[in-house]
Formats: sequence, C-alpha cells, structure tokens
Amino acid sequence: MLSRDQALARDAQDPLAHCRDEFVITDQELIYLDGNSLGRLTKRGADAVERATQREWGDHLVRSWHDWIGLPEQIGDDLAPLLGAGPGEVLVCDQTSVNLFKLASAVLTERGRKVVVADDSNFPSDRYVLAAVAKAAGGTMREMAVDPLAGPTVADLAKVLDASVGLVSLSLVSFKSGAIADLAAITALAHRHGALVLWDLSHAAGAIEFDLRGAGADLAIGCTYKYLNGGPGAPAFLFVRRELQNQLLSPIPGWFGHEDMFAFAGEYRPAAGIRRFSVGTPPILSLRAAQAGIAVTARVGMAPIRRKSVALTELLIARADAVLQPLGFTVATPRDAERRGSHVSLAHPEAYAITQAMIARKVVPDFRAPNLIRLGVAPLYTRFSEIWDAVEVIAEIARTRAHEPWLRAARTRVT
Amino acid sequence: MLSRDQALARDAQDPLAHCRDEFVITDQELIYLDGNSLGRLTKRGADAVERATQREWGDHLVRSWHDWIGLPEQIGDDLAPLLGAGPGEVLVCDQTSVNLFKLASAVLTERGRKVVVADDSNFPSDRYVLAAVAKAAGGTMREMAVDPLAGPTVADLAKVLDASVGLVSLSLVSFKSGAIADLAAITALAHRHGALVLWDLSHAAGAIEFDLRGAGADLAIGCTYKYLNGGPGAPAFLFVRRELQNQLLSPIPGWFGHEDMFAFAGEYRPAAGIRRFSVGTPPILSLRAAQAGIAVTARVGMAPIRRKSVALTELLIARADAVLQPLGFTVATPRDAERRGSHVSLAHPEAYAITQAMIARKVVPDFRAPNLIRLGVAPLYTRFSEIWDAVEVIAEIARTRAHEPWLRAARTRVT
Repeated sequence: MLSRDQALARDAQDPLAHCRDEFVITDQELIYLDGNSLGRLTKRGADAVERATQREWGDHLVRSWHDWIGLPEQIGDDLAPLLGAGPGEVLVCDQTSVNLFKLASAVLTERGRKVVVADDSNFPSDRYVLAAVAKAAGGTMREMAVDPLAGPTVADLAKVLDASVGLVSLSLVSFKSGAIADLAAITALAHRHGALVLWDLSHAAGAIEFDLRGAGADLAIGCTYKYLNGGPGAPAFLFVRRELQNQLLSPIPGWFGHEDMFAFAGEYRPAAGIRRFSVGTPPILSLRAAQAGIAVTARVGMAPIRRKSVALTELLIARADAVLQPLGFTVATPRDAERRGSHVSLAHPEAYAITQAMIARKVVPDFRAPNLIRLGVAPLYTRFSEIWDAVEVIAEIARTRAHEPWLRAARTRVT
Repeated sequence: MLSRDQALARDAQDPLAHCRDEFVITDQELIYLDGNSLGRLTKRGADAVERATQREWGDHLVRSWHDWIGLPEQIGDDLAPLLGAGPGEVLVCDQTSVNLFKLASAVLTERGRKVVVADDSNFPSDRYVLAAVAKAAGGTMREMAVDPLAGPTVADLAKVLDASVGLVSLSLVSFKSGAIADLAAITALAHRHGALVLWDLSHAAGAIEFDLRGAGADLAIGCTYKYLNGGPGAPAFLFVRRELQNQLLSPIPGWFGHEDMFAFAGEYRPAAGIRRFSVGTPPILSLRAAQAGIAVTARVGMAPIRRKSVALTELLIARADAVLQPLGFTVATPRDAERRGSHVSLAHPEAYAITQAMIARKVVPDFRAPNLIRLGVAPLYTRFSEIWDAVEVIAEIARTRAHEPWLRAARTRVT
C-alpha cells in the first residue's frame, strides 16, 4: 500500500505536473474532483475571454465577425484529433442536447426505420430527447437494459436490434459508473443490422483515448465544459462522419448552415459538409473560452493524459478499497482500467450528505442521485497526493459522522 | 435645416447623454451605426464577464451553479418589462433560431392546423426554420406577400388566413426597412381566425416600445445582442403568454426544462411555466454579458430611449433627403416615425462598396444584400452630431467615388 509520501513522490515524477501551471488555481488547498462536471479555468481561457470582450467586442465591434464566423468549424478541427475525427468532421456549436436533437432527427427523417434504441443507464436528458425525436418521427424509443456498472455491451445491444431500428444512441463513458462502452464492436454490430450509432462523448472527450474514424463511427455529440475545460455551459460539439454529411439535413435549418448565408436567399440551401449542422449566431465569449480549453488538451495529446488518468483512478480505487470499503462505501466503477473512464463513483446510502460535508472541507466531488459520490480526476491538474488526501477526508467524515447536519436538511440542487 | 452646431447643441441638451458613459468606448472618433447588428460593450458587461470568468468559474468552480442555474429565468424577468411581458413569461436561452424552432414546433404539434404563415420580407433564417417546422408537422409554409417598405399589414394577413392556418410568424420590426408591424391588430386578426402569432422581436427589443400582454400576444423570440447590448451571439430570449405555457411542449425536452432536473428521472416531466422551454446548460459567460446589457436598458426604460431614437432617425432622414438623395440614395424606411424602428436603410446600387468605404473612414453601418446600407441608431450611445457627420461622410464618398476600389472587389462576408 502506497503511503502519502509515495503519493507525493509520484507527483514529483509526474511528466504532466507542469500542466497544472496552465490553470488559474487561486486556492491550492482546494481538492477539485469535479472536472467531470465543470473543468477548471485555463490561463489561456481567461486571456481569451478578456481579449474577446475588450478587444474583439469592445474595440473592434461588428468587424470582428470576420474572425468569429469561422470559429465553430476551426475549433471543431482543433478538437477533431482528440476524438479520432478528421478535419471537417467536427463542429463546436449549440448545447449538447440541441446537437443530439439535430443529429437524431436528421437520421430519423432520412430513414424508413423509426425505432431509436437508447440504454436505460444513459444520461436522462439524452433519453428525453431521443424519446421525443422518435415520437415526432412516428416511431418509438426502445429501451435497452444494461448493467449500470458495466455500461452498454454488444450482448445487450444484440437483444434489441431488428430491422425496425434506425438509430442506436449510447454514451461512450457512462455518466454514473464511468464504464467505457466498446465503440468499435457496438458500431459494427449496429451496422450489420442496418442501424447508425450516435455516441454521446460528454464524459469521454478529453478523458479517454478513442478513434471515431477507426471505429467507423457515424455520429457523435458531446460537451466541452468537462474534461476539455471549455467553461460553464460552453458550446458543445457534434461529429458527422464525412461520408454521411451530405445525406443528412438539420431539422433546424438556420442561416449559419446555409450554403451562402449572407446572400439572404429565399430558399434554404444547406452548405456542403459539416457546416450544414450549424444553426445561428454562436455565443462568442463562451466559444473563445472553449477554444482555449480545447487547445490546452490538444497540445498535450490524449496518450499521456490517459496514462495518468489510469494511474490516478487506480490509486483512488486502491485507497477506497483499503480505507472506505470498511466504512460502508462501494466502488461503483469498473475495476478493469481498460473499461473505466476518468471518474470513480462511490456508492453510499448517505452520499448526498457526505458530498456536502466534503465540500465544506474543501474537497469538491459531485453527487448523482440517489447514492453516488462521483470523483473525477483531471490529469492536467489533479495530483496523486490530492487523491490520497481526498480519501482521508471522506474517511474522516464517515468515521466522525460529520455529515449528520446535511442528513437532516432537504436535498437541494447539486450539479 | 439643422446645422452641425445645432446637432452639437442637441447633444448638449440630450437627457440620455450620460448613458454613453455606461459603455466601453475606446475610440471616440468611431461612428458606430451598427448597434442593430452587434450592440456595444457595457462597462457592467465587461465587469460581469470578468467576474464570471475569474471569480465564479475560476475560484468558485462548480459551486457557482447555485447562482447560475436560475439565470435564464431571472434575466427573463429583467427583460420582461422592456417587452410588456409579465414575470415568468420570458426566458433567456439558446439562439434565436433554436427558440423559434422550439415555439413554432410546440404550436404545430399541439394543433390540428398545420399551415404556418410567414411573410416574404422576414429574416431568411426565420423563414427557413418555419418552412422546416411546417414540413415536419405534415403541413406547409404559406408565403404572405408584403410591401417590404411597409412591412406586414393587417390587409396582407387577411388575404392568406383561413381555417388551415395554425400559426402566423412575423417580425415586429423589419430587418431591412425597419418598418413596425401593428402588433395588436395583427394579433387580433389572427386570433379571430383561430391562429396563434409568434413574433420575432430581434430588431424591436430595446429599440421601440411595445406591449406584448396589452396586445394579447401569444409567443415571441428575439436576440439580445443588438439593441440590448448583450454581446456577440449572446443567448436569445423567448416569450410564451402565461396562459399558453402549460399547453405547449418543447420539441427538445432537455433536462433544464424538467420538473425536477436533478432527480434524473427516467421519464420527462415538463416543468410548470416558462422553464419547460429550456433545453440544456446555458453558456454562462455569454449569459452574464447579456444580463448586464439588459440591465443597462432596463434602468433607463424604453420611453426616453424611444423618444431619442425617433429624434435621431428624424434627423438622419432629413439629412439623407437634403444631402444624399441628390447623390442617388433612396430612403428605404417608413417616413412616419410611428411606423419606423431604430434603423434607417438607404438604398443605393453600389451599397456594398459604399459600406466598405464608410468602414475605412470609421463610420460603421451594415450592408444587407442586394442594395441596402443599414444605419442603426442606439440612443444609449449614438449622438446627434454623429448622425450629422455620418451623412457627410457618405456624401463625401459618393461625390468623390471613394468606394471605387470595392466595386471591383468580390463581395465578401459582412454581418
């Protein structure tokens, strides 16, 4: 068993230790394990937002559209290598749910098959949108039962596929357990049954390595404000495989997706390529922050980030087994590193109150109803010693019942 | 005829002159007549964005969601009085086209009538979206022919209404001519024929006085980055009359519109009230800028803004008639101040090249294809003397053919 000194030694040897300097960290004592909900502010992001506000908007005013107009595509191209996508296949725009809606609707409108398969462990908002899209198209959403700890598997999918299924939509990394689905195998199985697959990469982008093109993936969406450090509510992204782009039409044909947007033509003519999935004027200040966050991850590359992520979650699980399991916590995340993303969930019946006590002691996790404490590790700024210390804080809370005051309080909103 | 000294005297007596101090204006020589495309940066907006970036995101991180989560509704309530809307009737979220899509779809899904009436002078993006919504609902978009100078009238609408029309969607202020439609009369006519009306207020909000509730208006959308100075691509707004809210369902049922979003329930249950039209995580940095811009206008109130707007456009038209008409320019905006918004369009066959020459001389208008120079007046920061000087610059360009270089250049993108 590693000691705290050994954790400190691993920090000293960490090849990504310098990456922490890319971030604005004003309170070095805060142990932030919620980068899987809202990533930290990068120094470049802070500079980019200030420049976008003061210089681009304040000074240069409407003339800045010359530079702004191409940002959704440019930032998409910056992001593409982190997803295994090619140039011209990714667009940074809108919110995750809006992008999911656009791509799912585009597929269902195009195809005779109107059944959408969604899994019962997926993020609820995805399932709400998919059910609505299926219903609007005259079809239905078919639930695929999965073991929440394992996430969706090929065997699960095989049980629900048939000739009525037009689209399968799953998360690559489960928002609860952190389980990684088999991108290539699931995609191949769906293709053999004539269905397309739309992946939600929200907990995968910037967290794990994967290869959309290598897996033959069709469509994906995801957010930039988690591991990509794009800022609160930063514009999301969408991916459409090059070969599919011109076969699909956005259900929301806004002027930013028009072939010649400033012609103000009477008829909508979709742009060729990925831009046809744009809608309207993007929120530039938030977009500039996203650009900076993505650039920091892109410069480091996913391979060293993933190596450190695995080492951090290994340490976290080992310490949880040793120290927290006797106190009533259960690791609710796959133990096989190959099957695990960059967060570890601990199940405990008093999880909500414990997360509140943790926050009061400057360890920030997040809570997912009904009983999960999610601990996200962000290799660009999370230290091994922080993992050690966070587990000690959780243990101390549980031992001393320091979370009692919150047990009695009503459950309030936590993101 | 007013002299330049008289224009300066009007600036000196202007009761809104002090409002210019609310804005970050680093180049006092720049005559900015494009606040109808992108409003200026407010000092409060710059401060709000910095605070949101450094303090809320950087320091306070995910814990800031406690304050952020209610912003779409709070800012909606700040904006409501400027629209004649009540509390709980306005939401600031998404982009204008996404909001148009949501509300138009919600109406058409609900109703047996599947024809949408749109006018041929409306902003093309609105028409693209309305046509797509009608088609997806199994209906059609019916074009209503209007005189572009006059904008849509009751007489125009009477010609196209019948029992198949479920929705009429028009702009309150025409993006080209600046003509104001008769909100109350058109709404009443549509209601008599059993149709609802969805107004695009993009060129009206913060520009003219109107009363959504007084007019019995049903639905509206609009952007905050023009006269409301919300920042580039700032989140848009939507209005749904209180009495209609719980009868309509968003076609994009995201978790932010769920009755209990953090319960992560398996089934979507729409929130009661305006929040059901939310989708997902809003772009906070851009939203904080919008909040500040709206607050500046809200503190002044629309009555004095409108009075000054009318005085500024009267001066502009008078000078255009005297100085520019002999040079081949035509005023393409209603001459009746009651029928005119806060921009004046000048038609000229070489409009594009002239706008480029104006920008080179630090007078910023915008160009709308094929032949319009749009001059927006923003009473919070536009001076009478700037109107005088801008007309002189346009005249000087036309007299000396200073725009010749751009006549030969290809048309490029201008917003």
